[in-house]
Amino acid sequence: MPAAPKTSTDPLTHAQELLDRLLQSEIDHPVRPTLDPKKAVSDLGLAIPERGLPMDETLQRLKDVVLATPATTGSGFFNQLFGGREPVAVLADILAAVCNTSMYTYKAAGVQVLLEQILLDKMKDLAGFAGGDGLFTPGGSLSNMAAMIIARNEAIENSRETGFPGGNHVVYTSAESHYSVRKNAGLLGIGRGNVHKVAADRVGRMIPEELDKAIVKDTADGLHPLMIISTSGTTVMGAFDPIRPLAEVAKKHNTWLHVDGAFGGSALLSEQFKPLMDGIELADSLTWDAHKMMGVPLICSVMLTREPGLTGKHFDETATYLFQQDEDMLNPGTRSLQCGRRNDALKLWAAWQHLGDDGYRDRVNRQFELSRHFLARVEEDPDLTLSCDPQWVNICFEVTGKPSDQICDELDRRQLAKLGWGIVHGRRVIRMVCVNPAQTEAELDALLANVKDVAETLPDGDNSVQS
Amino acid sequence: MPAAPKTSTDPLTHAQELLDRLLQSEIDHPVRPTLDPKKAVSDLGLAIPERGLPMDETLQRLKDVVLATPATTGSGFFNQLFGGREPVAVLADILAAVCNTSMYTYKAAGVQVLLEQILLDKMKDLAGFAGGDGLFTPGGSLSNMAAMIIARNEAIENSRETGFPGGNHVVYTSAESHYSVRKNAGLLGIGRGNVHKVAADRVGRMIPEELDKAIVKDTADGLHPLMIISTSGTTVMGAFDPIRPLAEVAKKHNTWLHVDGAFGGSALLSEQFKPLMDGIELADSLTWDAHKMMGVPLICSVMLTREPGLTGKHFDETATYLFQQDEDMLNPGTRSLQCGRRNDALKLWAAWQHLGDDGYRDRVNRQFELSRHFLARVEEDPDLTLSCDPQWVNICFEVTGKPSDQICDELDRRQLAKLGWGIVHGRRVIRMVCVNPAQTEAELDALLANVKDVAETLPDGDNSVQS
Repeated sequence: MPAAPKTSTDPLTHAQELLDRLLQSEIDHPVRPTLDPKKAVSDLGLAIPERGLPMDETLQRLKDVVLATPATTGSGFFNQLFGGREPVAVLADILAAVCNTSMYTYKAAGVQVLLEQILLDKMKDLAGFAGGDGLFTPGGSLSNMAAMIIARNEAIENSRETGFPGGNHVVYTSAESHYSVRKNAGLLGIGRGNVHKVAADRVGRMIPEELDKAIVKDTADGLHPLMIISTSGTTVMGAFDPIRPLAEVAKKHNTWLHVDGAFGGSALLSEQFKPLMDGIELADSLTWDAHKMMGVPLICSVMLTREPGLTGKHFDETATYLFQQDEDMLNPGTRSLQCGRRNDALKLWAAWQHLGDDGYRDRVNRQFELSRHFLARVEEDPDLTLSCDPQWVNICFEVTGKPSDQICDELDRRQLAKLGWGIVHGRRVIRMVCVNPAQTEAELDALLANVKDVAETLPDGDNSVQS
Repeated sequence: MPAAPKTSTDPLTHAQELLDRLLQSEIDHPVRPTLDPKKAVSDLGLAIPERGLPMDETLQRLKDVVLATPATTGSGFFNQLFGGREPVAVLADILAAVCNTSMYTYKAAGVQVLLEQILLDKMKDLAGFAGGDGLFTPGGSLSNMAAMIIARNEAIENSRETGFPGGNHVVYTSAESHYSVRKNAGLLGIGRGNVHKVAADRVGRMIPEELDKAIVKDTADGLHPLMIISTSGTTVMGAFDPIRPLAEVAKKHNTWLHVDGAFGGSALLSEQFKPLMDGIELADSLTWDAHKMMGVPLICSVMLTREPGLTGKHFDETATYLFQQDEDMLNPGTRSLQCGRRNDALKLWAAWQHLGDDGYRDRVNRQFELSRHFLARVEEDPDLTLSCDPQWVNICFEVTGKPSDQICDELDRRQLAKLGWGIVHGRRVIRMVCVNPAQTEAELDALLANVKDVAETLPDGDNSVQS
């Protein structure tokens, strides 16, 4: 007879203690040192033991590991399109881990299904997709994938049943779009070579006339336009493609228009920025990540469609062992990419309860305000060069004559900041993103001072790149 | 100027209090009442408010919502292939929500990347895939999808670049396999109609001779075998397809062999059950969910391949703004399905540190032991009919002459247990799964007594179904 399993209910009584320790550490050490990988494995005891460790030792190792993990929430993190946190969203996500709800059926997930639906309805309303359809996915790339599957299977009759005859079906997107478009084309059988990149203007926006020309030419060459993927909030420049004229091109060629608003979708939260997505109600689908600008922990992404019934039409599968009570509407597993699915809704619901529409509007406005402060500092500084006129919370710039990539590396090495670079107009530029509303103007000023200090210690360098 | 955003660091100081309350409630009310959906929306105040609620009110609503959510961890939940919890895994997942690590680069994720790699190496070793490849995905369905993408793109030269010429490429899987196989075929352009179901034996195992016959016939008909998807631990019967002879068929026809061990992969943790997956080292890829039998919160799923380099080969995409430091090995974003990606590794790492290999072996052995206790009770009871000889921790049975579906509904309605039914040999049967090692023999006896009590109150019914 096997031995009784080793369990302990003890560790969960240490949650608050570890949580407090971790939060304090973020304040004390906003940028933790980068560890040598090989050394970290042995120093932190990462290997899996044959015989288990006592609980106190396990907890010690767990604490060491989280305290050695790069901090993404404090005043030193500008590296990605997320930062900061809404504390009540984190609390809700903690409870989600304890509830361990799988979001496929009303029987298993109950009220969590309802609040997820309420969030989808809310976000559809904001997008002008009232009465449409939507689902939560595990990230912006997969939200884009869900939209691309629907667009592909809608365009080619019976392809869900008989297969997709890939080879000459083209996806159009801007040169500045997210890499998931090309990646997904490879995953979905469309082919990466069938993603045609359309030129963007100096601000980073896809040029509708260029799109139209590309479609006309490809069609004449015997290719089939499959879908157009517009971006609201590009990764580097934060550009918003002009949806209304793109929708006209899509309509002219009878082509699906998806909007990748993973980053910029949150513009819909504020009347001040909604015009950046003018015409969104004419699009067929939208990706929107709440984990980027809405302060909820990773992952919280939705894909919404204007037409009703599309997720069920393309993702439903009979499974009598699973879907056996309640109507389909209450069983989101009938319209998800996944089967078992983590609860990504509770955290957003909790934050939205506390902030309300007004609070989320103010949050976005504040993010933008911080970016305008930073922009002004860059513009007024003779040592800095602004790389493009920003539409959103990204400010791209160079320390004139100094290598952007090395500046970012050195900031990290000296534990001053995690900050990244991107390519704009064929040049390596520092990409600042103001996504953490808890940051202050003084902190942004200090960051910029650090950027300049670090740059001074570096030899001159050329930021131009071969494309 | 916009108003300052409304934030509060206060709610995270309530984590322990809410956590304790939730855990106590699971003990007091193992099966919570099923709520009327419309009533729940208003009673629990689920609608999103225009103006945010004060923090105390938000916390009250959050508490009400989690306490109204079906409990999945306690002694009343037998509805899915997960149940119970390793507390230290939950604690680690709580910290993961606070750390909010995105798992694409070493710069942003640091040590979390290392422990994720250690887990993948460990699981590859157990599968006989040492030196192979692997990744974490957001669930078993998507792990199967990742394997299907690799198999498809490996089989058809250049299809990642030029597109997949779908239409006559066939996927083979057993009649008892998970619905994600057919679903993924629709998502990936293969076509659901090109999934050919192979007959299973009375225990639920795919019959290798039938598979071989199907491939020979299809090939003669001009179709192309694309891949074989074997199952280790089917959803209803818990059957393990015989991998070694299936691998011979795969080799004969030069076809990819994927093993969907989402549920049964954990057999690899125990020498006692490893023979169920005899020949696994001959397969090309494996899906294995740790969130099913290893007690970690949802989601924790891996897809492993025998050959090295395949995830990078098929999922990598250039993204200079993101992958700009460190070698590719340290940047798992170069080989993931997603871009931004939640940390699903820390929880499994923490549990494996505490349990060790020995503890996980004992855990699986105990799950099996519980299922044998339940099996013996069913076999000795003249009122019960066993539906098939179980290989794994699923016990399928009928209360002779009584409708299985109504029994499950009534158990739920009376708050006695969440338990589901499936179809075995054309009959609706109650599917019991022993995945929670914290349950006792006495609790299983009590469940069976409740099943019989409830059945007695129901009119006789026919469990046969039209297929």
